[in-house]
Amino acid sequence: MSGSTFGQVFKVHSFGESHAKAMGVVIDGCPSGVKFSLDNLQSFLNRRRPGFSTFTSKRKEEDTVELLSGVYDGHTLGTPIAMLVYNKDTKPSDYKEIKSNPRQGHADDVWKAKYKYTDHRGGGRASARETVSRVMAGAVAQMLIKSLQPKLNVFSFIKSVGPISISDEAIANIKKHSNPEKELRKLDLAIPDDKCLQKVKNLLTKAKLNGESYGGVVELIACNLPAGLGQPVFHKLKSDIAMALLSIGSTVGIEFGDGFEDSMQQGSKFHSLNQQHNYSGLRGGISTGDDLILNLAFKPVSSIGKVALNGRHDPCVLQRALPVIESMVLISLADHILSCRLDKI
Amino acid sequence: MSGSTFGQVFKVHSFGESHAKAMGVVIDGCPSGVKFSLDNLQSFLNRRRPGFSTFTSKRKEEDTVELLSGVYDGHTLGTPIAMLVYNKDTKPSDYKEIKSNPRQGHADDVWKAKYKYTDHRGGGRASARETVSRVMAGAVAQMLIKSLQPKLNVFSFIKSVGPISISDEAIANIKKHSNPEKELRKLDLAIPDDKCLQKVKNLLTKAKLNGESYGGVVELIACNLPAGLGQPVFHKLKSDIAMALLSIGSTVGIEFGDGFEDSMQQGSKFHSLNQQHNYSGLRGGISTGDDLILNLAFKPVSSIGKVALNGRHDPCVLQRALPVIESMVLISLADHILSCRLDKI
Amino acid sequence: MSGSTFGQVFKVHSFGESHAKAMGVVIDGCPSGVKFSLDNLQSFLNRRRPGFSTFTSKRKEEDTVELLSGVYDGHTLGTPIAMLVYNKDTKPSDYKEIKSNPRQGHADDVWKAKYKYTDHRGGGRASARETVSRVMAGAVAQMLIKSLQPKLNVFSFIKSVGPISISDEAIANIKKHSNPEKELRKLDLAIPDDKCLQKVKNLLTKAKLNGESYGGVVELIACNLPAGLGQPVFHKLKSDIAMALLSIGSTVGIEFGDGFEDSMQQGSKFHSLNQQHNYSGLRGGISTGDDLILNLAFKPVSSIGKVALNGRHDPCVLQRALPVIESMVLISLADHILSCRLDKI
Amino acid sequence: MSGSTFGQVFKVHSFGESHAKAMGVVIDGCPSGVKFSLDNLQSFLNRRRPGFSTFTSKRKEEDTVELLSGVYDGHTLGTPIAMLVYNKDTKPSDYKEIKSNPRQGHADDVWKAKYKYTDHRGGGRASARETVSRVMAGAVAQMLIKSLQPKLNVFSFIKSVGPISISDEAIANIKKHSNPEKELRKLDLAIPDDKCLQKVKNLLTKAKLNGESYGGVVELIACNLPAGLGQPVFHKLKSDIAMALLSIGSTVGIEFGDGFEDSMQQGSKFHSLNQQHNYSGLRGGISTGDDLILNLAFKPVSSIGKVALNGRHDPCVLQRALPVIESMVLISLADHILSCRLDKI
Repeated sequence: MSGSTFGQVFKVHSFGESHAKAMGVVIDGCPSGVKFSLDNLQSFLNRRRPGFSTFTSKRKEEDTVELLSGVYDGHTLGTPIAMLVYNKDTKPSDYKEIKSNPRQGHADDVWKAKYKYTDHRGGGRASARETVSRVMAGAVAQMLIKSLQPKLNVFSFIKSVGPISISDEAIANIKKHSNPEKELRKLDLAIPDDKCLQKVKNLLTKAKLNGESYGGVVELIACNLPAGLGQPVFHKLKSDIAMALLSIGSTVGIEFGDGFEDSMQQGSKFHSLNQQHNYSGLRGGISTGDDLILNLAFKPVSSIGKVALNGRHDPCVLQRALPVIESMVLISLADHILSCRLDKI
Repeated sequence: MSGSTFGQVFKVHSFGESHAKAMGVVIDGCPSGVKFSLDNLQSFLNRRRPGFSTFTSKRKEEDTVELLSGVYDGHTLGTPIAMLVYNKDTKPSDYKEIKSNPRQGHADDVWKAKYKYTDHRGGGRASARETVSRVMAGAVAQMLIKSLQPKLNVFSFIKSVGPISISDEAIANIKKHSNPEKELRKLDLAIPDDKCLQKVKNLLTKAKLNGESYGGVVELIACNLPAGLGQPVFHKLKSDIAMALLSIGSTVGIEFGDGFEDSMQQGSKFHSLNQQHNYSGLRGGISTGDDLILNLAFKPVSSIGKVALNGRHDPCVLQRALPVIESMVLISLADHILSCRLDKI
Repeated sequence: MSGSTFGQVFKVHSFGESHAKAMGVVIDGCPSGVKFSLDNLQSFLNRRRPGFSTFTSKRKEEDTVELLSGVYDGHTLGTPIAMLVYNKDTKPSDYKEIKSNPRQGHADDVWKAKYKYTDHRGGGRASARETVSRVMAGAVAQMLIKSLQPKLNVFSFIKSVGPISISDEAIANIKKHSNPEKELRKLDLAIPDDKCLQKVKNLLTKAKLNGESYGGVVELIACNLPAGLGQPVFHKLKSDIAMALLSIGSTVGIEFGDGFEDSMQQGSKFHSLNQQHNYSGLRGGISTGDDLILNLAFKPVSSIGKVALNGRHDPCVLQRALPVIESMVLISLADHILSCRLDKI
Repeated sequence: MSGSTFGQVFKVHSFGESHAKAMGVVIDGCPSGVKFSLDNLQSFLNRRRPGFSTFTSKRKEEDTVELLSGVYDGHTLGTPIAMLVYNKDTKPSDYKEIKSNPRQGHADDVWKAKYKYTDHRGGGRASARETVSRVMAGAVAQMLIKSLQPKLNVFSFIKSVGPISISDEAIANIKKHSNPEKELRKLDLAIPDDKCLQKVKNLLTKAKLNGESYGGVVELIACNLPAGLGQPVFHKLKSDIAMALLSIGSTVGIEFGDGFEDSMQQGSKFHSLNQQHNYSGLRGGISTGDDLILNLAFKPVSSIGKVALNGRHDPCVLQRALPVIESMVLISLADHILSCRLDKI
């Protein structure tokens, strides 16, 4: 069954295995007339590149986007936008062992059982490299959103790595910032809390040496959302975003606002509090126009011990995951912004 | 945009406003030959009926299922299965005020802004009554699953209500039970921990008197799942189930296994632990054949204070939510079990 | 696999077997704010009722529409519109024989082989009665179109019955008429040519006596279509309408303009001629704003000989097919009119 | 709205403008384990190449398929199969005029009005070059069918060009042939009637000199179809194939069996005749296991007069259309063969 399409209207068709010729994406459903910048697309994509910081994998991918169709003279045409990135830096020899000896925590054996025929090299389609397609689509979603909702802004940061969390104060500060997106880009590891950052660096330096790995939590905020996004009853904004984000590898949980903490509150307190905090931007699963806030939990990376020490692996993938997370939210928002055109006569 | 369809293959089309003539569902994509029992369907539906326990709303709905099509002589026909429940006990007078004065925490005003024309009575389509359709579909999904995967078993229980949680021991006990589903049905409030249950009863008795409300967490377990469920990359089992469950009203978070707690662990510990616990039944977002375990967080009910004291409202909806949660998971599983027929040549 | 949904945006979900409890339809994707008249819906539906003229089957169906959801206070809500018609006049005894002895030309045995479990009574879901659902949806599509494109007008008439055709002059006259729709409704058998009509009446009177049957050709015209309807490349207006119309039972061919005749022409003549006639309203499969003209061919009815003489059968179904044909075109047009909202930024 | 996807299960996503970087296709929904031959794919694609015979356009396209993903070690992986062909031989200068002066009979102006932003060069996405994507997908559909229904065979031939038709005898002969597919490939212009062929050659030689153009009719036959293909009620085999074929440029009509001629017959004759001829392989819109036979009508090519004399244009496109027609039918059949896996429990 086809599982590589996301979206009801702004449809994203992803393709590619990590060691096939290319990763790519076709977007069918982007209206004509969107200003298209290949440079912006490339910058967006560069954010997920490994080797970006000291603590991410050394696999060097140039990841130059090739735009195949759907754009002419700087604008989208309303036709399918196809883009790809060739897979250049593939070393199948690294993965020889996997064929006979599937990696712990990975899905190699699960895929083998499911499909019988698989491309075992580097995780194939289950590889994190698959997110290249998501990010290309996310960049286009962002261009569409800039045309239709120029003030809408999506940003994310690392809230915790393993046992180390940033302070509530730091979170409050970044939210108050006039341009949090820009501010966050300046940072190492997207942790907007200096003390916490230092601890995390120490943690990951050790982890890298010991073949240890960590997960963590990412917080994402979408500001200046239009009200009314979400289609009752199965395509609420919260359900579509949950689907979008939990389709990313290694994710193990999502909460809107303080989800699990909120479940412990008294109704009277929760609702009086939320009258101020605006229910994290959602009521009835539909956007209210207030900031949408969510947390996404990642389990520790599967490549540990010898595997981690030998291969090209990150002790923590959160940094690289940020553009992917933002992309999936941008795609969902683009899809819903367009869908709303069909709400009223 | 149409948002009332769930599923890729086992497609569930829901309809109905709380004070319209009927709630209903059409299932298109159920194969022919499934043994169909209207009695089982009715029993399943009765579990979500209000007035079931002391702590749930007094609105009395008979909710007798009318089967319209798709079944003949005790078997499904492979044609659309249409079912409805007429809305009988509607007192629009209770909701007169809402038209001019939308309720706090509810989505009345959000819908109004989105659609301009709304049925304000009782929340309309945003009412919890909409879940009648989900439960009817869930019951059919269960019948299909019984035919194809007779050992597959889905059950859920209340893990916490507001600040009160059941003990780890109680959870371990229910998991060990030979027939947890049956055991749980015997219980008041589906809390398999006597001490906790007593505390919760006290909490909710007071809440009822004071117009207070609570949310909580539900744990769901699916046993004897076949391996290989889930379609990469966007229709992983975890992403589809997340979408399914977060489309339920008042949900604010989901985690697979110990999601958020797992994000704080060291990789070496997490993975050695999970080698035993089997990654909560998922790797690469695809079922491994081991038990699928998830937690779903609910915020406190929106009807508090005067509204709660006047209307027919629950101080806590978790009890009624259980069959809805199970239904959405059953529908997702039915959809994926069928989808897997298309995986291999 | 689910096959009972039509449309990309204005989605029509049909259900019902001819001898099940009800026939029905759920429309998901109709925007809020459409003026809804149950009377108009009923009138539209009455046009397909058997017993309408001397030459149609005597099965008497009241076919009273029951509106279940999606409409409040005279307007659509943007939620699913569910409607049904109970099956009252069912005489399964008429069809007893079919179970063991499938009817020639019908699909009874094909369905049996496909699904194993079938409802053999009266053709089940393969019965012409299934078109009740299409006509209810067509009536709603018409209401939507009246809101968005008030001048758009769809009408159809019988062009030939068996070997007897109306004259070119008669066709030219009806096209020139100021209100062809109204004019056609006055007619017996929707044949706008007196001489031809008399011949057809004679033909069908004899056919009724002899257990003979006839097919024929229906011409449909859509006037005042907006330009730009159709989504390249697979959802062109012509391909979607072809699908819509060839999903009706007994249809065996469709042509746009003079399709098959046009295929014999010299390009120079065809294109100079079409510069006047505007390519039947389509270029590149997309509407040009000119009249859309098409012909739909029906094979002779399958019930002939003894079967025809014993049962409640028509010697010719074209008359009853007209509202079904118009409905499918109206649904397609509604779907495309809405889809175009997503063409441009 | 996304219109470039065909299929319910075997989903074909097409992309590309005639003068963009590439034409391509992503197939999502092909099961794993299909034997994949790039050589066969290339051969299939070569059949649509211009310059193939004297009477087709001289535009020389190498059209070398590049396989990007979804296949490893000679078998499909169950993941999306992405393929492209770079657009090499593009001479935008030929089309300069079009920007300000849209071509008669073409859709240049219709697209401009619809999308505002268009790629005017060579028809953009409305160009016949778009069929490259269809043929690549058709070749993969054929490989899938070879695995699942090895005897199933689809072939087509030219039945008439303008006013010149092949004889009934010639049609009967080709149908009786042991390997009609192979026989037809040997022929010039796929006209299996020597006398007719000579007349057509004379007609087209003159046409080429005079800037004249012709349409015609193609007959397609699918032998050894499994019974039961088609999903009631909207995705009948006949409706899906009609949609598939009328999405091809320049098509103006389709008939199953002798469609329009059959509409003139007496029921008694038609049904007794069809008892032998098996209703062209369809009853209730579902395949019966007998040969499926259909005719597809093309209008005369739009490029006539000066345009035809100056540019690289065919006086008749039927020859090049054959692999496209076969591809669309193969894709539809692949889709339905897979869909049937979901019919029964």
